[in-house]
Amino acid sequence: MKSFNFYQPTRLLFGSGRRVDAGAAARDLADSALFVVDPMLLTVAADKVEDVQRSLGEAGVRVVTSTDVVPNPTLDAIQRGAELAKGEGVKAVIGMGGGSAIDTAKAIAVAARHPGTAWDYLYFKKAPTAATLPIMAINTTSGTGTQTSKVSVFTNTAETCKSAICDDNLLCRVAIIDPELMLSLPAHVTAATGFDIFTHTFESYINTGACEAVDAIALDAIARVLRSLPVAVTNGSNLSAREDLAWADTLAGQCLANVGTTLPHAAGQPISGHFPKVSHGESLAVIYPAFAAFTWRGAVSKFARVARMFNPALATASDEVAAQSLALEVERFLKLIGLYRRLDDFGITSNDIPPILAHAMEFPDNQGNPVVPSQEDMRQIYMKSFRNA
Amino acid sequence: MKSFNFYQPTRLLFGSGRRVDAGAAARDLADSALFVVDPMLLTVAADKVEDVQRSLGEAGVRVVTSTDVVPNPTLDAIQRGAELAKGEGVKAVIGMGGGSAIDTAKAIAVAARHPGTAWDYLYFKKAPTAATLPIMAINTTSGTGTQTSKVSVFTNTAETCKSAICDDNLLCRVAIIDPELMLSLPAHVTAATGFDIFTHTFESYINTGACEAVDAIALDAIARVLRSLPVAVTNGSNLSAREDLAWADTLAGQCLANVGTTLPHAAGQPISGHFPKVSHGESLAVIYPAFAAFTWRGAVSKFARVARMFNPALATASDEVAAQSLALEVERFLKLIGLYRRLDDFGITSNDIPPILAHAMEFPDNQGNPVVPSQEDMRQIYMKSFRNA
Ligand SMILES: [Fe+2]
Ligand SMILES: [Fe+2]
Repeated sequence: MKSFNFYQPTRLLFGSGRRVDAGAAARDLADSALFVVDPMLLTVAADKVEDVQRSLGEAGVRVVTSTDVVPNPTLDAIQRGAELAKGEGVKAVIGMGGGSAIDTAKAIAVAARHPGTAWDYLYFKKAPTAATLPIMAINTTSGTGTQTSKVSVFTNTAETCKSAICDDNLLCRVAIIDPELMLSLPAHVTAATGFDIFTHTFESYINTGACEAVDAIALDAIARVLRSLPVAVTNGSNLSAREDLAWADTLAGQCLANVGTTLPHAAGQPISGHFPKVSHGESLAVIYPAFAAFTWRGAVSKFARVARMFNPALATASDEVAAQSLALEVERFLKLIGLYRRLDDFGITSNDIPPILAHAMEFPDNQGNPVVPSQEDMRQIYMKSFRNA
Repeated sequence: MKSFNFYQPTRLLFGSGRRVDAGAAARDLADSALFVVDPMLLTVAADKVEDVQRSLGEAGVRVVTSTDVVPNPTLDAIQRGAELAKGEGVKAVIGMGGGSAIDTAKAIAVAARHPGTAWDYLYFKKAPTAATLPIMAINTTSGTGTQTSKVSVFTNTAETCKSAICDDNLLCRVAIIDPELMLSLPAHVTAATGFDIFTHTFESYINTGACEAVDAIALDAIARVLRSLPVAVTNGSNLSAREDLAWADTLAGQCLANVGTTLPHAAGQPISGHFPKVSHGESLAVIYPAFAAFTWRGAVSKFARVARMFNPALATASDEVAAQSLALEVERFLKLIGLYRRLDDFGITSNDIPPILAHAMEFPDNQGNPVVPSQEDMRQIYMKSFRNA
């Protein structure tokens, strides 16, 4: 049994309606907090935001609210939030919303307590210290796993560069995972973010840095996605499917925090970078069949195990046959949830590939793939992701 | 899906040989530590204790060593340790050994930083605060799960009473789980402590306070115990079996910290209390078949699932039949690992039952049992645990 480290200190409050526990949980962290909330929520779920604010108020937490959240968090917005947090002297940061709101809150927690800007604390620069403000997350989507991961992703518009802080100090002290907050997500967002959960767990599972602690969590989460994502896409108001996905996403964040993603995240992120209308989940979906076809030989038994979760009829097939068929099983699943796309569908042509490819090769995620791709391998994965490839 | 909380903040360093990482891990907590080590280890594993001490020294941690550890930790020994910690001004406590050494270290961490004695902080009295010294565990047995649980059990000899502190502040900051430290455990200790792992996970799984987060962990741990405990009992030097059990025990501590035990721990602990030569694992083993026969109706599908893990041939049986057969499956397993005992085997007679019974009914653990026992139910469970019952 391989040696490993496992660390997941976030106190998890899981369950439908748990948003009303925000006050008591925050009060255990600090007597004041910056409440970073996605402004969209004030339109689509004002009552639920009020539930949280009322709970915070009743617990006696002094709250400074900020709705300065943009879909791809920017360094500018983070620095504005940090100035507000410093000016108000708050002692914690609470993020409520999707990945953007929570990643903004996480980066503010660093920027408010360290010299320079959040950009100085990217994963390859200086490490944030324990002075980072305590962070609480109330997530309203299931996909990024940010409530249990140690990452905050944001963009420096001045440098036109997207990067991330990745540090244990970015692990939330508390996460409230309330599936009722996810009931109103539209089907296409549910599909794309739900598939992202699958990718976080599957890539952590097959990662060459995988460990048994994470394997078990990943398989648990995969089973939940496979059984509940099609249900939630078809019927978004099915609470038990939302609960299953919300817990799967929380487990997926634990996988990210302790192992991490591989080739698909390296290949997908530059697609969204160069074609911003392609969502993160779509960028992964478009690559997955070609990635699976390229990679299965490097992790036959793990690919086979997951292929059999997609299709129990593979129980009688050999490991090799089952592993190889994962590409097809994923394709079928993507069709089932309405997320099957080819690069052509986004207006991408083969002429767009060279800059995307160059960018993809820079990601360290490739090194954990069971077959480490050469640049030519990666090029072929892109080319096979076109229609009639 | 039921609402639940889950909290497991211990940083886990798992793997054979990891004891040499003690220094770096301790240095992240504090620059000085009381090192509470089971004196037995200095006889049977002096070189491994030295590995830890060398690592601590190389990391620049000022270490004050105490071997004042007794098999059932006493309040007196804990208070002596607390005085030593205070006198030396150490900023952390490191326990190395079995449950006794680590529970002693945990209680010292409370007593050294709070007014009164550790006895004032029992689970039904005052709660320890965040002033509790940071705790690191290096466990040398697999059974108590104390490296991930929030409990410290000890005895007040003046009051002839055994009780426990149970608080989040007793969760270790770091646990080093090095299965090489467990290679020399004798077969009967392996069997008894290994069965204790099973009970912690099974009782958390069937507990009426169970939750899906813990269910998954419990089932993972149960599978490890069933496949590896018979191997470790037969061949104690089988490292992969030791690894499997060590990880199962770590998962079991997570189950204890987030759910907890039921009837068997209520029934078993007074047996050891009144007959100290009966080990904790033996006290559980003797009760388990009668407990299972009494309880299966209250949690048919969960009993059935675990029964099928013991005996895959039950796959085709009905849930009722499988659940009911768990008592027999456990009995077979206990015979396999040489732990099958009847109360008579310990020299216990029916005349000894009334005081044991009275004590057993006091434990809150009974309330989480799928069938809450009346005093008469409990009496019958004891009576059925005699030979020819
Ligand atoms: Fe992702
Ligand atoms: Fe126990």
